[in-house]
Amino acid sequence: MKELYDQIRKNSAQCIEELVTLCRYQSISAYKETHKEKVAECAQHLVQMMNSIGIETTMSSVGEGNPIILGELKSKKSGAKTIMFYNHYDVQPVDPLNEWNSDPFAPVEKDGRLYGRGVADNKGTIVARLAAVRSVIDVLGETPVNLKFLFEGEEEIGSPTLATFVQRNKDALKADGCLWEGSERDMSGRLVVRLGNKGMLYVELSAHGARSDQHSKWAPIVPNPAWRLCWALTSVRSASGEVLVRGFYDGVREPTQKEVMLLKEIPFDEKAYRELFGVSSLIERGGRVKLVKKLLFSPTCNIAGFHSGYGGPGSKTVLPSEAVAKLDLRLVPDQKPSKVLELLTSHLGKSGFGDVDVRMLHQMEPARSSFDSPIVNTVLQSARDVYGMDPIVYPISMGSSPIYTAINILKIPTVGVGGVGRNDSNVHGPNETIRSEDFIRGIELAARIVSTF
Amino acid sequence: MKELYDQIRKNSAQCIEELVTLCRYQSISAYKETHKEKVAECAQHLVQMMNSIGIETTMSSVGEGNPIILGELKSKKSGAKTIMFYNHYDVQPVDPLNEWNSDPFAPVEKDGRLYGRGVADNKGTIVARLAAVRSVIDVLGETPVNLKFLFEGEEEIGSPTLATFVQRNKDALKADGCLWEGSERDMSGRLVVRLGNKGMLYVELSAHGARSDQHSKWAPIVPNPAWRLCWALTSVRSASGEVLVRGFYDGVREPTQKEVMLLKEIPFDEKAYRELFGVSSLIERGGRVKLVKKLLFSPTCNIAGFHSGYGGPGSKTVLPSEAVAKLDLRLVPDQKPSKVLELLTSHLGKSGFGDVDVRMLHQMEPARSSFDSPIVNTVLQSARDVYGMDPIVYPISMGSSPIYTAINILKIPTVGVGGVGRNDSNVHGPNETIRSEDFIRGIELAARIVSTF
Repeated sequence: MKELYDQIRKNSAQCIEELVTLCRYQSISAYKETHKEKVAECAQHLVQMMNSIGIETTMSSVGEGNPIILGELKSKKSGAKTIMFYNHYDVQPVDPLNEWNSDPFAPVEKDGRLYGRGVADNKGTIVARLAAVRSVIDVLGETPVNLKFLFEGEEEIGSPTLATFVQRNKDALKADGCLWEGSERDMSGRLVVRLGNKGMLYVELSAHGARSDQHSKWAPIVPNPAWRLCWALTSVRSASGEVLVRGFYDGVREPTQKEVMLLKEIPFDEKAYRELFGVSSLIERGGRVKLVKKLLFSPTCNIAGFHSGYGGPGSKTVLPSEAVAKLDLRLVPDQKPSKVLELLTSHLGKSGFGDVDVRMLHQMEPARSSFDSPIVNTVLQSARDVYGMDPIVYPISMGSSPIYTAINILKIPTVGVGGVGRNDSNVHGPNETIRSEDFIRGIELAARIVSTF
Repeated sequence: MKELYDQIRKNSAQCIEELVTLCRYQSISAYKETHKEKVAECAQHLVQMMNSIGIETTMSSVGEGNPIILGELKSKKSGAKTIMFYNHYDVQPVDPLNEWNSDPFAPVEKDGRLYGRGVADNKGTIVARLAAVRSVIDVLGETPVNLKFLFEGEEEIGSPTLATFVQRNKDALKADGCLWEGSERDMSGRLVVRLGNKGMLYVELSAHGARSDQHSKWAPIVPNPAWRLCWALTSVRSASGEVLVRGFYDGVREPTQKEVMLLKEIPFDEKAYRELFGVSSLIERGGRVKLVKKLLFSPTCNIAGFHSGYGGPGSKTVLPSEAVAKLDLRLVPDQKPSKVLELLTSHLGKSGFGDVDVRMLHQMEPARSSFDSPIVNTVLQSARDVYGMDPIVYPISMGSSPIYTAINILKIPTVGVGGVGRNDSNVHGPNETIRSEDFIRGIELAARIVSTF
């Protein structure tokens, strides 16, 4: 392994140069009207990078979606296992631009850090993984495992075409383990590893009254949709936070004993978070393990927005014509978003709120891999070797991601891992940054995994 | 009376000219920063008009409030009774200006109608009343009653200083009957008369969570103020519309037998209103009288606005840091806004929502005069004489106004009456309009009342 790490160190300047080049592409997927061409150019450049180290690629799109790159590099070893890498080459918008200290699309290295849009999320991990593959080939002459690459360009807008693509390409995407994008090192330097993500059901509920806003003197006889929506919502979730939709919790898979063990190892500084949020107490009490368990293993039903009537300064006496609430429900394995949507709609109808419209805006399945998968073991061993510290293992993440496409559709044990960024990387914000040393270690980590799986 | 009416007809062109002149003043009270001078100029002009017909005036202000004009014209008759006129010379803003077919501040007469801001609300009634007084003097040599005039310049912004002014000038404002501003003819030409108004308690409720909006992945452990506010609100009012605050209904004065009789005479076309509002059914069923009774005699608790979190297109997964609801409660005699505020605040505390902030934005007492007052009788007789049709008498209006300052503070039987506008006058909207003939009849009505009380 020393020879491999040495080779990586030797090439580090070149790897950073490659990352800087990839980050110059303004592959902002949110700007569909203006940046579609720039996204495609980024994909094209990525294909060239992949081809230059011998990866065969095909590029295709589902409908109007951005290009999805499928790459393959076969090992000459007979019976070699297969690892798949998932990453995305699209990035978030950069506004507010005036808060950046340097051009977000012309990354610069300063005091051991790189600054630029995408250096952490997620181009840094792409370049690290490709550099790792090249180094492994340089040192071993070939890769001991077959490699597959699934690089999409719409992760930042909710991966609207990924599930369809994966369904259509199930055979081409077979693998024994998958490394998802996404994880960082914690501030003490320990690698963070995630074995899954929550799902998401995002709905808009709306209630309707008069055809336009009315003078509130009509309140005795004209229905008020804001009241309707308040009542409808409180029928969905109790004041103590319990979701009252019958069957909502049916699919919830309890954590295994092993997962409970992992929970106990996850650091969580309750006081620091209370201060960060500026709240005197959190909803869950009873200490770190209970808090982390609640965070990771409980589904949520969150009001992300509620808007109706007058919202300006002072008073206006209006009877609103419409009230709209946006709800995001983060689901846990094995809840199904489509089933929850059905239950929610039927609940409202049965509770006398059949007049409240339910519109589904997007959905994503929850998924988590078993801790006992070989790929998990390889990742953990590699992390210890590269960082000299035990990694932190989240049996599932509290956020949502399309990781379910690999775990649930392709049935591949999947690990969210990267190591290129940290909590202070300002992902999605101005001055996105990584430490150059973290980037090099990220290459070593990927190389170690590829050469030992 | 014929001689009086003839005199009014003879002067009608002059009266319209006077109205046009008064409407040229841009007395928009809402524009405190820019139009304070214009409001004062309007008051000054009004004083000149009043002085020119022998009314003695004093002009004063409470704090930073716009000028309040107090006028007096004594009768030479010993033991003469006193009538007070309440009006306001301020007007609403004129935007959207591009929807006006003519300059809102340069009224024009066209096809028997006048168009301009204030022609209906409320400068038309001011000019009609002053013209009536002048005609009565012309014909009778003096007014058979003492007259008092209370003209304010802040009605359109909620009359913030009127109650204080009235309290301070109780003695100067003694009268046997008061004609309030405000009422129109219905579309069939019958005069609408109102004997009171609902009150108002306007509050803002707000709930607070984290110090800033958070990623919704934190929902399992960070409180969501939008949920808090939904629950707090549904503790205040049931799904069937009943206010659940203990003691809320205690002050409600039931309609008298006479008032119930009046209710039965009030026209209300349920079908037409359903179509106007675009709703398939109204809250109250059971026919016209029940609907009108509910409209006039029941207090309301209306959500005028509810805002929290994301309200743009599509989805955003945010855990809001704040939720704000604006509530307008229209109260009926003898509920007291200050008492209801106390009950509401204490209700929230007792119901476990002590963390929800209650901020009072404004309040106004409800008030209604007795049908049996002499001034009511004179108004009704005069209406029959001028219009040849029975007036429509609302024992109370479903809207709110500072009429309580006369009824509750000064204890003067008070009638909301005018007759200058109609339902189609576009009060507060673009192309505010009155029929010239309605304006002349409005002068006749005031003259008839003054000469027969």
